[in-house]
Amino acid sequence: MKIVEMKIHSIAIADPPLRSSYGLHAPYALRTIIEIKSEDGVVGVSETYGGDAPAKALEELRGQIVGANPYLLCGHLSQMVEGRGKLEERSQTYLVPGENPLDATTRTYAAIEVACLDLIGKSVGESVCDLIGGRVRDAVQFSAYPFYKHRGGGGEGADARPDEYGECLSPETIVKQVVAMRKRYGFGSIKFKAGVLEPEIEIETIKQLRRELGPKIPLRIDPNCAWSVATSIKVGKELAEELSGGGYLEDPCVGLEGMAEVRKALLAEGIQTPLASNVAVTSFADIPKAVELDAVQIVLCDHHYWGGMRQVQHLARMCKTFAMGLSMHSNSHLGISLMGMTHVAAATPHLTYACDTHYPWQSEEDEVAVGGRVAIKNGAVAISRKPGLGVELDYDKLARGKERYRICKYRKRDDEAEMRKHVDKNWKRILPRW
Amino acid sequence: MKIVEMKIHSIAIADPPLRSSYGLHAPYALRTIIEIKSEDGVVGVSETYGGDAPAKALEELRGQIVGANPYLLCGHLSQMVEGRGKLEERSQTYLVPGENPLDATTRTYAAIEVACLDLIGKSVGESVCDLIGGRVRDAVQFSAYPFYKHRGGGGEGADARPDEYGECLSPETIVKQVVAMRKRYGFGSIKFKAGVLEPEIEIETIKQLRRELGPKIPLRIDPNCAWSVATSIKVGKELAEELSGGGYLEDPCVGLEGMAEVRKALLAEGIQTPLASNVAVTSFADIPKAVELDAVQIVLCDHHYWGGMRQVQHLARMCKTFAMGLSMHSNSHLGISLMGMTHVAAATPHLTYACDTHYPWQSEEDEVAVGGRVAIKNGAVAISRKPGLGVELDYDKLARGKERYRICKYRKRDDEAEMRKHVDKNWKRILPRW
Repeated sequence: MKIVEMKIHSIAIADPPLRSSYGLHAPYALRTIIEIKSEDGVVGVSETYGGDAPAKALEELRGQIVGANPYLLCGHLSQMVEGRGKLEERSQTYLVPGENPLDATTRTYAAIEVACLDLIGKSVGESVCDLIGGRVRDAVQFSAYPFYKHRGGGGEGADARPDEYGECLSPETIVKQVVAMRKRYGFGSIKFKAGVLEPEIEIETIKQLRRELGPKIPLRIDPNCAWSVATSIKVGKELAEELSGGGYLEDPCVGLEGMAEVRKALLAEGIQTPLASNVAVTSFADIPKAVELDAVQIVLCDHHYWGGMRQVQHLARMCKTFAMGLSMHSNSHLGISLMGMTHVAAATPHLTYACDTHYPWQSEEDEVAVGGRVAIKNGAVAISRKPGLGVELDYDKLARGKERYRICKYRKRDDEAEMRKHVDKNWKRILPRW
Repeated sequence: MKIVEMKIHSIAIADPPLRSSYGLHAPYALRTIIEIKSEDGVVGVSETYGGDAPAKALEELRGQIVGANPYLLCGHLSQMVEGRGKLEERSQTYLVPGENPLDATTRTYAAIEVACLDLIGKSVGESVCDLIGGRVRDAVQFSAYPFYKHRGGGGEGADARPDEYGECLSPETIVKQVVAMRKRYGFGSIKFKAGVLEPEIEIETIKQLRRELGPKIPLRIDPNCAWSVATSIKVGKELAEELSGGGYLEDPCVGLEGMAEVRKALLAEGIQTPLASNVAVTSFADIPKAVELDAVQIVLCDHHYWGGMRQVQHLARMCKTFAMGLSMHSNSHLGISLMGMTHVAAATPHLTYACDTHYPWQSEEDEVAVGGRVAIKNGAVAISRKPGLGVELDYDKLARGKERYRICKYRKRDDEAEMRKHVDKNWKRILPRW
C-alpha cells in the first residue's frame, strides 16, 4: 500500500469561556485534521492540536509521508518518539498541552500514526483497536468534565453559540452543570476542573457535588498546580472522604517533589487519595522520578502528546508494572480525536479510571465527522466493528471549520492572553496562587 | 477474516550435547509448530516450546481460536498476559525457560499472537515487523553462542548427526569453536555459556577468546547463576577489561539481591561491566525490584515467554525509560522462531545488543521452513519485504520432525536428567556450585 496524497486542514471550533489555572479558553479552539489517501483511494484521517505550528510540522514531513507505505512509515519516523539522546523530563507546568516544544515531534508523530492506522484499518476492513492488539472492551467510559465558566457558548459575533450552561462561577452552578451533563450523557464519574476560585469555594463545590450525587459517583479535582504544597495537603485532608471510592487529586501543586510531599503528608494521616498527573508526568522521561518519589499514583495519558497509540500501550504496561493507575487526559477536541482516544483505550487492558473528555463542550455544528457528533451513552463511547476509527470526514463541515480558522484571529492557544482580554487586564498565571 | 482451522505439530530436532549450569542438552530438543488457516486458505505459523504440555495448552484453546478473527483474538485472550491479580515475580533460577509454570499462559499467548500476526501479514501482504509498528532496521544482529560440549552432533542411533565442533571442554576448543562459527556466520559479538567448568578455566576461556579476537569484539559470559556472590565479584574483577566495550556479565549468581551485591562491589572498584539477566528478570513483575536494587542493567527478553511481540515492545520502552539495555535470550529453535525474534527485534527501536540464538547448533535437515535454513550473514538475519514472518512450512520436513517426536523418548526438557544419564549418575544442579 502506498500513500499518494496528504492533506492538512487547520480548523477552528467554537469553545465556551472555560476557566482553569492556565487562564481562559478563547472563543475558538484550534484543531488540525490530517487526511492521507492510498493509491486505492482509501482515506485515513486523524485529528491533532491546531494552529499554524502543528500544521507546519506536518507539512515539513510531507516528503516522507507521500510515497510511503503506511505500515512502514511509523518505523521510519520512530526517532520522533524515541529521541536521539538522553531522555529529557518535560513538565507542562508552565505550558498548556500542545504548546510544549519538547513534545513537538511526539505530537506530530502521533497524528501521523493515527492517520496510518485509520488508513490501514479502512483498507483491510478492521477497526484500529484491533490492529494494535485487539479490543479488550467494547465501550470506553468517560467522565463528566465540569468547568467554572463565564457566560457564553463559544464562537464570536454572528458565529456565537448558544450557552448551554450559562455562567458557572459558584458551587451551585457547577452542581447544576454536572446534573445536566449526567442527564444528557449518563456519566458515571466526575472530573472537576479547579484552580480557579478560592480553595474554600472549590472544596465546597466538591462537597455539594458529593451531597447531590450520593456516595457512589467517583469525584476528582484538578487545580492544574494552582496550590502550594500546604494548600494541597489541606484540600486533600478536607476532601479525604469525598475523593475516596475511585476519585483522585490531580496535579494539586507544581512538580514531582511537591506532589511527593503532598502524598507523604496525606498517607501520614491515613488518607489514601491517589495523586494523578498530566502536568508533572507528560513523557516516559518523567516516570522514573515519579516512581522513585511516589509522587504520582495515576498517569493521565494522551495519545496526542505521548507519541501515539502504541506509546500509550507501552505506558499502560509500565503503569501496571509499577502499580500505577492509568486514565486519559483531554483537550478541546472533535470526534476524530474522541474515536482515537476510544480505540486506544479499547485496546489497553490496564486502564483503571474513566477517561477525561472535553467533547461535551463542543458543538454539533463544528463536528467534521459524517453523521455528526459521536454518541456518549451511559457515559461511554462504544466501539463498533466499523473499519479504522469508524469515522469519515464530512467535507462540507470541514470546509466550514477551515473558514472559521481563516476568519478567527487565533493561531495558537494562549489562555493567559484571553484572561487579560476578557477578565483582568493584569492577569498572570501565578503558581502557587493559593 | 476468520480462522477456520488450527493444527498443532509436536516435533523433535537434533540437539548437540551442550552443557550449561542447568545440565546437559538431550539429543533432541522439542518444539511445537502452530498453523492457523483463514477462510481464504492463508496459513499463519508460529513456533514455540515443545513437548506435551505446550501442545496441550494450545489444544485447550482450540475452541476460542477456531472461528475467531485473528485481529481480535489477542484482545480476547489478553488476560493470559495481563493476569488477573497482583503481578507475581517469577525467577527461572531453578527451572529452564519453557518449564516455569508461572509463564505458562504468557508462553501460550505468545505462540498464538505470532501465528495471528503471520496470518494477518500473509493476508495483507505485509511483514510482521511492519504490522506491529514498522521496521526500524532491515537486519538484526545476533551473537555467536559458544558452549562447552561433549562429543556428538545431536540425534540418536541411526539419526545421529555429524559433530561439527567435536568435544569442547577446554579454553582452546572453545576458541576453535568460536573461530569456526565466526568464519561461517560472521558473528560480531560472542556470548559464552559458562557455569560448567571451574571458574578459573572459564576466565581463561574468555581471556583466550579476547587474545584470539582482538579488542573490538564484545564478549559476554553467562554462567546461569552457577557462582556465589563472591565468585561473581572475583570473575567480574578478573574479566573487567575483557568484558568492557559492549560485553556483559549475565546472571552470575542467584537472584536480584545477589546481583545487586555483585553490581555494587564491581562499581566500588570502578568496574562498569553491566549485569544482564534472563533468569532473575523473566517478567514485568521482576522489573521494579531490579530497578530499585540496580541489580540488572540489561534485560534479555524472549517473545516466547514474555507474552509475545507486543509485550517485548512494551518491555523495550520500559528498559529505555529506566536506562536499562535490552537484548534477546534464546533456546534451541528452528527458523520460524528465529524469524519471530528477528521481526520483533526489527520493530523494536531500543535494542542495544546483538541477540542470542542457538540456531547454528541446529541442523539443516531439521529445518521445517521451505528453502531450508534461514541465512545468517555478517552475524545478521535480514528482514525482507516478504509477507508475515517470511517463512512457509515444508510439510515433508514437518512430517519428519513429527516422526522424530513420536520415536524419541523426550516429552519435556530435563537437562539434569541428561547429566545423570550421560555424565555423572549422581549429578545435581547445585547453586552456587562455585
